Amino acid sequence: MQELVERIKRDGVYVGGGIIKVDAFLNHQLDAGLMGRIGRELADRFADAGVVGVTKILTAESSGIPPALCAAQVLNVPLIYARKKTPLTMSKQVYYAEAPSRTKGGMVPLMVSPDYLGAADRVLIIDDFLATGQTLLALVDIVRQSGAVLCGVGCVVEKVFEPGRAAVAAVFPHGPILSLAQINITEGELVVSG
Amino acid sequence: MQELVERIKRDGVYVGGGIIKVDAFLNHQLDAGLMGRIGRELADRFADAGVVGVTKILTAESSGIPPALCAAQVLNVPLIYARKKTPLTMSKQVYYAEAPSRTKGGMVPLMVSPDYLGAADRVLIIDDFLATGQTLLALVDIVRQSGAVLCGVGCVVEKVFEPGRAAVAAVFPHGPILSLAQINITEGELVVSG
Repeated sequence: MQELVERIKRDGVYVGGGIIKVDAFLNHQLDAGLMGRIGRELADRFADAGVVGVTKILTAESSGIPPALCAAQVLNVPLIYARKKTPLTMSKQVYYAEAPSRTKGGMVPLMVSPDYLGAADRVLIIDDFLATGQTLLALVDIVRQSGAVLCGVGCVVEKVFEPGRAAVAAVFPHGPILSLAQINITEGELVVSG
Repeated sequence: MQELVERIKRDGVYVGGGIIKVDAFLNHQLDAGLMGRIGRELADRFADAGVVGVTKILTAESSGIPPALCAAQVLNVPLIYARKKTPLTMSKQVYYAEAPSRTKGGMVPLMVSPDYLGAADRVLIIDDFLATGQTLLALVDIVRQSGAVLCGVGCVVEKVFEPGRAAVAAVFPHGPILSLAQINITEGELVVSG
């Protein structure tokens, strides 16, 4: 996605250690218009990949919500975001998985209520980053627990120097696993393609 | 907002203790189309209230992000969401405030990078609920720290039996303070208007 690639080149900052700062437009501060176009592009690419009949989109709070919501608006399906804490309003029985957080430290629980995801659903998982793949693996596990059909995995930015794609492909071998921009680090510099 | 009022009546659940469960369409699972219409309604109501020249929308992760993002798309301005934890990518100097969380327990820190909010900005604060008002007060304090001009406060659902509106009005007396649906509890039953 050319607009996204150019935006990462312009406003993304490589802070070292494999961490890319995109707080200016993708996390923390969001370019609302770009986010809408990202949602449409994700929906279009899943359609191009032959994905049909999606009933739900699943993401993890918080940074996955914006691209996943915008894709859900294009596909006209509900969005479910996995919770990291249990609100008082959540049912006691939940689909549960954990993922390590590299940017925040520690293990992060992810919970989804069975009220909203079940065996009749056809699900797309969408998140902001594909890096280690651990958050996506936790979401894939939640889809498996629900009995729903996983139809595709999509992310906005993929770090191709991380093992995330291989990790997700190991549990979702037929794909599609999509990303709108790919980042690599060469001699300490960001290289962005898409 | 009639569609929202009808949806709360249909799918909202009063679980007792002043807590309304709207996980089926507003938190956890989102009706993506409704969320877009909520964003447009918020933008329209701020315009009707005479608000002009907005440069940023501010909310708190996670449940404030969807309505705030949809309003930001209509107004064509960036959205900033206050972080509850410090990602490694966040600058060390932040605007900082705290709010107690009733649904999750404990105090929640809220942080915004000065990179994205400053004295030249004109800000709308948007969140999902106006209840105790403590999250909104923390966001108002962050706007004050930044030197930006607060132009309006809007929420999707207001609990009129809670002191939130009075608390926000005490620090933002000239308003506008908007809500799209108002909830009261009468004899243990939800009463919804808007």
